[in-house]
Amino acid sequence: MKGAVLYGPRDVRYAEREDPTIVEPTDAIIRLPATCICGSDLWPYRGIDPVTQPTPMGHEYVGIVEEVGSAVKKIKPGQFVVGSFFASDNTCAICQAGYQSRCVQAEVMTQIGTQAPRARIPLADGTLVATPDLPSDDLIPSLLATSDVLGTGWFAADAANVQPGSTVAVVGDGAVGLLGVLAAKQMGAERIIAMSRHAPRQQLAREFGATDIVSERGDEGVARIKDLTGGLGAHSVIEAVGTQESMLQAIRATRPGGYVGYVGVSHDVQLPGEELFFAEVHLFGGPAPVRRFLPHLIDLVCHRKINPGKVFDLTLPLDQVAEGYRAMDERRAIKVLLRP
Amino acid sequence: MKGAVLYGPRDVRYAEREDPTIVEPTDAIIRLPATCICGSDLWPYRGIDPVTQPTPMGHEYVGIVEEVGSAVKKIKPGQFVVGSFFASDNTCAICQAGYQSRCVQAEVMTQIGTQAPRARIPLADGTLVATPDLPSDDLIPSLLATSDVLGTGWFAADAANVQPGSTVAVVGDGAVGLLGVLAAKQMGAERIIAMSRHAPRQQLAREFGATDIVSERGDEGVARIKDLTGGLGAHSVIEAVGTQESMLQAIRATRPGGYVGYVGVSHDVQLPGEELFFAEVHLFGGPAPVRRFLPHLIDLVCHRKINPGKVFDLTLPLDQVAEGYRAMDERRAIKVLLRP
Repeated sequence: MKGAVLYGPRDVRYAEREDPTIVEPTDAIIRLPATCICGSDLWPYRGIDPVTQPTPMGHEYVGIVEEVGSAVKKIKPGQFVVGSFFASDNTCAICQAGYQSRCVQAEVMTQIGTQAPRARIPLADGTLVATPDLPSDDLIPSLLATSDVLGTGWFAADAANVQPGSTVAVVGDGAVGLLGVLAAKQMGAERIIAMSRHAPRQQLAREFGATDIVSERGDEGVARIKDLTGGLGAHSVIEAVGTQESMLQAIRATRPGGYVGYVGVSHDVQLPGEELFFAEVHLFGGPAPVRRFLPHLIDLVCHRKINPGKVFDLTLPLDQVAEGYRAMDERRAIKVLLRP
Repeated sequence: MKGAVLYGPRDVRYAEREDPTIVEPTDAIIRLPATCICGSDLWPYRGIDPVTQPTPMGHEYVGIVEEVGSAVKKIKPGQFVVGSFFASDNTCAICQAGYQSRCVQAEVMTQIGTQAPRARIPLADGTLVATPDLPSDDLIPSLLATSDVLGTGWFAADAANVQPGSTVAVVGDGAVGLLGVLAAKQMGAERIIAMSRHAPRQQLAREFGATDIVSERGDEGVARIKDLTGGLGAHSVIEAVGTQESMLQAIRATRPGGYVGYVGVSHDVQLPGEELFFAEVHLFGGPAPVRRFLPHLIDLVCHRKINPGKVFDLTLPLDQVAEGYRAMDERRAIKVLLRP
């Protein structure tokens, strides 16, 4: 089959790759009706994460199960399934506590590369969640969004302890930040402040539930959040960028005793201990344990209570994956859906 | 009156100071039957925190109310009271959420200096908690401990989300760490691993509820904690030192999804963002909002359910305060009680 392969900085190609097969008896093979490009794919695409050999790309997926290994008991061929970017057994102590992205058997799907027509999913019974019925085609973008970008935004809101009636600020207007807005809205936040300076993203943030937009960044952005919160800062702040500036902006925009949920993959960040100590904010984040949230998110999508698929503002055939990366790199697209 | 004054590195004296008086109508004046030296007093004593002028020392206190300002409504002369090292109004949104150390009107008691026979307590109605009756003299060390060292250890255990049946590791065998052990025990932890290489402190840790002692530090200490927890790490880790090594030791000894509660005053700490991201541990700490816990802790002490005063292994008259600092600096004493 052919799929996306990264050869070096800004050199992604629709190239020949090995057909997936059952390797472990706990594997499943799925056929993907759609896949997509993640903001985190831009780190290696831009050469910030080094690429030393041709690397299959993609870690978000939904699909129809084609085949399962002999040890797979719950997942059946023909089911429509969603999984997360970490395969997990969903039975170990870490999974049972709800942190499946750090499962003792975790396998990261970036090593598999789901920007392809078919993919091998390890630990299928733990990793995959089947939809109640075969979803109609118009639901597929939103179901695909639950696989990472919504699951990650949801985790960020959960990590930031968003409560009914609370005030939430969101740092980062990429797809994860925007879906953090949606998550905060679903969790009952009363005031949701999206930090964005891009009109189409501001617009989508408002559609997802943002009540205020702050276009300032850094210290000025923090000052605006303080202005909007009686000088105290937000109860909860979602960080969805991963830089030193964005992390400090998030920490400083949070009131004492408040919560920062951070999901931007951390790059060159050093948090000053003394500032953190006296800020007295809860800090939690990391690779989102999307598996924990999938049943609920799939339910919301299938009942059409949320429409996270709106973050896909460009759809391309998979063989134009290179153009998809360019569009996201140049911020011409928020998130690109690829159709094999 | 005379009290402790720090003139420069390792130069603390029992020296003449101004008598406290009511400055604000919300103030109270208390007479202290006992005061004490805190591990955090050693930072300026050792010259690590600079001292630019003669500085009254001490921030822990209990005492009999002698006088109250005209706006003080709840606290009455003659009451025996305990307060925290941060005066707080206990009414603002931050206090009401339980973070009184970051009260919008917070005043830190280090600016007052309670290693003295009498002290002015700002925001008396918010800051002070009265005991039900005048306590007997033997309870005074334990009540004094609630003012900071127990309150801080308790907050650390709370921030580390200690739960019944859980496994807790404690980094730091100073008085705060030891009382973190006591707090974890009270909160129902099943296994409490104290990290200490000092026999008398190991002994006290065991008295307070430690089930295991780990004498290794750094990476070796982390490896021992992993060994003791099925390779996963502790559910909760209390950090009570404040250095780069101790913070990383705490983070690395925590299982994914677990909690670090840190209360060691942070000195020259830089937390690497990428490690923190992939560690996926909850991080929370700072100056303990002791006021939140005082009613419960006073109740436990007055009913003799806990004896945190055991951390005082040296009692001196206040005029020998210099010897008290030396004993703690040289680790000859865990914590020094001073009797005015």
